[in-house]
Amino acid sequence: MHLAALHTPSQIQLNQDGHLKHFITIEGLSKETLTKILDTAHSFINDQNQLVTNNLLEGRTVMNLFFENSTRTRTTFEAAAKRLSANVLNIDIARSSTSKGETLRDTLWNLEAMAADIFVVRHSSSGAAHFIAQTVCPHVAIINAGDGRHAHPTQAMLDMLTIRRETKKPFEELSVAIIGDIKHSRVARSDVAALQTLGCKDIRLIGPNTLLPVGFDDYGVRMFNKMDDGVADCDVIIALRIQNERIESPALSSQLEFYKMYGLDERRLALAKPNCIVMHPGPMNRGVEIASSIADGPQSVILHQVTNGIAVRMAVLALSMQGQLQEKGLIEAVSL
Amino acid sequence: MHLAALHTPSQIQLNQDGHLKHFITIEGLSKETLTKILDTAHSFINDQNQLVTNNLLEGRTVMNLFFENSTRTRTTFEAAAKRLSANVLNIDIARSSTSKGETLRDTLWNLEAMAADIFVVRHSSSGAAHFIAQTVCPHVAIINAGDGRHAHPTQAMLDMLTIRRETKKPFEELSVAIIGDIKHSRVARSDVAALQTLGCKDIRLIGPNTLLPVGFDDYGVRMFNKMDDGVADCDVIIALRIQNERIESPALSSQLEFYKMYGLDERRLALAKPNCIVMHPGPMNRGVEIASSIADGPQSVILHQVTNGIAVRMAVLALSMQGQLQEKGLIEAVSL
Amino acid sequence: MHLAALHTPSQIQLNQDGHLKHFITIEGLSKETLTKILDTAHSFINDQNQLVTNNLLEGRTVMNLFFENSTRTRTTFEAAAKRLSANVLNIDIARSSTSKGETLRDTLWNLEAMAADIFVVRHSSSGAAHFIAQTVCPHVAIINAGDGRHAHPTQAMLDMLTIRRETKKPFEELSVAIIGDIKHSRVARSDVAALQTLGCKDIRLIGPNTLLPVGFDDYGVRMFNKMDDGVADCDVIIALRIQNERIESPALSSQLEFYKMYGLDERRLALAKPNCIVMHPGPMNRGVEIASSIADGPQSVILHQVTNGIAVRMAVLALSMQGQLQEKGLIEAVSL
Repeated sequence: MHLAALHTPSQIQLNQDGHLKHFITIEGLSKETLTKILDTAHSFINDQNQLVTNNLLEGRTVMNLFFENSTRTRTTFEAAAKRLSANVLNIDIARSSTSKGETLRDTLWNLEAMAADIFVVRHSSSGAAHFIAQTVCPHVAIINAGDGRHAHPTQAMLDMLTIRRETKKPFEELSVAIIGDIKHSRVARSDVAALQTLGCKDIRLIGPNTLLPVGFDDYGVRMFNKMDDGVADCDVIIALRIQNERIESPALSSQLEFYKMYGLDERRLALAKPNCIVMHPGPMNRGVEIASSIADGPQSVILHQVTNGIAVRMAVLALSMQGQLQEKGLIEAVSL
Repeated sequence: MHLAALHTPSQIQLNQDGHLKHFITIEGLSKETLTKILDTAHSFINDQNQLVTNNLLEGRTVMNLFFENSTRTRTTFEAAAKRLSANVLNIDIARSSTSKGETLRDTLWNLEAMAADIFVVRHSSSGAAHFIAQTVCPHVAIINAGDGRHAHPTQAMLDMLTIRRETKKPFEELSVAIIGDIKHSRVARSDVAALQTLGCKDIRLIGPNTLLPVGFDDYGVRMFNKMDDGVADCDVIIALRIQNERIESPALSSQLEFYKMYGLDERRLALAKPNCIVMHPGPMNRGVEIASSIADGPQSVILHQVTNGIAVRMAVLALSMQGQLQEKGLIEAVSL
Repeated sequence: MHLAALHTPSQIQLNQDGHLKHFITIEGLSKETLTKILDTAHSFINDQNQLVTNNLLEGRTVMNLFFENSTRTRTTFEAAAKRLSANVLNIDIARSSTSKGETLRDTLWNLEAMAADIFVVRHSSSGAAHFIAQTVCPHVAIINAGDGRHAHPTQAMLDMLTIRRETKKPFEELSVAIIGDIKHSRVARSDVAALQTLGCKDIRLIGPNTLLPVGFDDYGVRMFNKMDDGVADCDVIIALRIQNERIESPALSSQLEFYKMYGLDERRLALAKPNCIVMHPGPMNRGVEIASSIADGPQSVILHQVTNGIAVRMAVLALSMQGQLQEKGLIEAVSL
């Protein structure tokens, strides 16, 4: 059974021709749609491995609505939108809205009426971006930049792009291990959904029981408490950021303890396939989730993830804009 | 007698050929000048009711100087300037100036010397923008984005553009009612001046005596304490935002009380002309100044006001820039 | 002996062909390199004394990393980068970095991986920009926007450009006096290094012993405690900003006292050459370092310094970018 089945398929993300018009969650999107995003992102990186710039969003207005602060994610979206020649407005949404007693709905309608084409939404509540797309501003392209523990779909897609570009193998042939605080990670949740949709057959979640999700083992995902078992013969290892306050298990009373049991070091990496790539969503705790020598070593593709993140954000911005324009009859076909 | 006569006519707003070079106050501007602004703004909205983008301010630097915070107004100016292809700099003016003991005059001269072409100024003191244009930086186009209780001229012009586009009637034939806290509203003051200049003969101000201005009834403006009388047969109703602390009258001891006496609801709207349009400068207090069913109803043009606001700000930015260039002999004629 | 000899020559600033690839300190740069910067900056000002705009950084991403707040300096770099058509991102570096336990090195690598071409760095610690260029991100063009008391090289270069444009004489023939808190001023330090490199033979530092640096008199710089002696027959006077807390001498117990002894007034300016120009890095304390009549008088070029500052920042941004591209083999020659 597919993890996506746990959730209502998000048909609101697609226009009448099946093209992306919002990008809110991996769940409910087909392999074709995800592959389209990856192909488009791939096309934004040239032969010298450098990001291109183009005019796909020239004259368009992208508004960043970060209800929850995340300097890094906001910066990546701002950089991506500017590479597409968009006008970017960072809205101080916390201050501009409820402070004057206005409803959030009215604030959003006002921003839409300022001729916004795209909202990039970050919110601490699960489903906030979905709610806005479904009931408040369906004609603005809504891009989810992370909501609560639920979804972080652009992070998942940049992970998929990195896996595709670095392993150069089909997802069907890959073994992917995710290590650490799976239970509280929006990245892990989105990664698993994307990997499943793209055909990955061997997904492994590694951590102490306190940090593993309940019920996933019914869905073709394997759980491991022992790190050595989990990483054996893997093609891809994704180490997640561990937060101090989440180390609740008596067995993991300190960062040092966590590193001893689940830190990715040279001995453990040697258990994986020889060309196994190492990923991390950042920011890293060196010496907790991962040894510095691995983070900076030849198998690490951690900084490539960041660059791929700009390409993926460019792709979902451009594709969603096209899907909206097509739905409104302003363009005939999606050309990307 | 014309309300504008209360104030020194603002000839500093015009260059030697009578073209706009600053935009500070409605008062002192002719019907021709206001109509020019409306025509220009109108030309920035295309046949599909969408805002255009153009290169009128390419290579120009617009600086937002918000001495008083107003995220929404700043955003509209930023969006407008970027649609004209300007470089926009948001200056943290509160921090950059007096904190180091520098005079405001020196701070502004410094910003001008950074090759600023336009300052968008928001200040809590009446006359701040006027002062800057007259005595500090006359060769920078100064746009007033709201000063104290005095003026909010771009809000007035977006209201005029909305009335013109939505009623499709000459101002001479319209009855316009403004409801609520007229006394403390910079919007109301600027609206009345603009309506008078554009030829509107029937301007009505509605509210309790505590919220009505003194002396306006001498100037061809009619005052109403009873809402039903005030809105009868109107073409346009503008409901103003009421602030809790301003409800001083014993008769209006609560928001509920205000709504009972002056809230715009379906019964009262029915007293106006059948196609009467409903406006509000935002942010709205639903259920206080206006019923939600009216705010979201077919006669509401509240969100059109917001879009028209971008067009109007584009117009005053572009026209003032041209007026400055013409004055300096850098262009021969204003082409817009 | 040359002041630059006090410091390790900063060869890391030049690429294999001797072209600028970072701009961190005046020290170690040749007269040819400084002249190249001045020539390039000069070319960005047209015959009407106005700053040009061009596409030299189109598609490039400039990130402002201000570890220490300086609204004014950040604004000048933002204005300069936008005149070159760059995408500019202001990074909230204080918030984005250490707050999540990430090392500064990792934060900078992440920003580099977002396809940053240029970092503009302001930091309170001497050598921060140098450290980043040498050991963290050598392939990003690093521009020092001021570090501790050490260097403020773009301020020095804008002073040099102003001297060249306003005096129209070779540096060899000029007498330049710097007045005030030399000891604590990063501007003074950088100015002296630039003047020496460009061939200025008569550099004078004027102030009480408590505000004069130790040991400079060995290096061909003359010290004066008496202002009248120091300014006699000068071509250029640079008055520095004095900070209250720095007036430590018992003889200078107040701003008034400072003004009496070292304030630039009409009597003292008359002791210099008749066409002596007056400069100040800003923000000014009128009536402390300088009389208002001088600051606003015909010999003041203080606001020209600000405009020249944009031109100089455009020059170092464009030249460093070209030097990086040339080093990477992405362009054949530096064309500016």
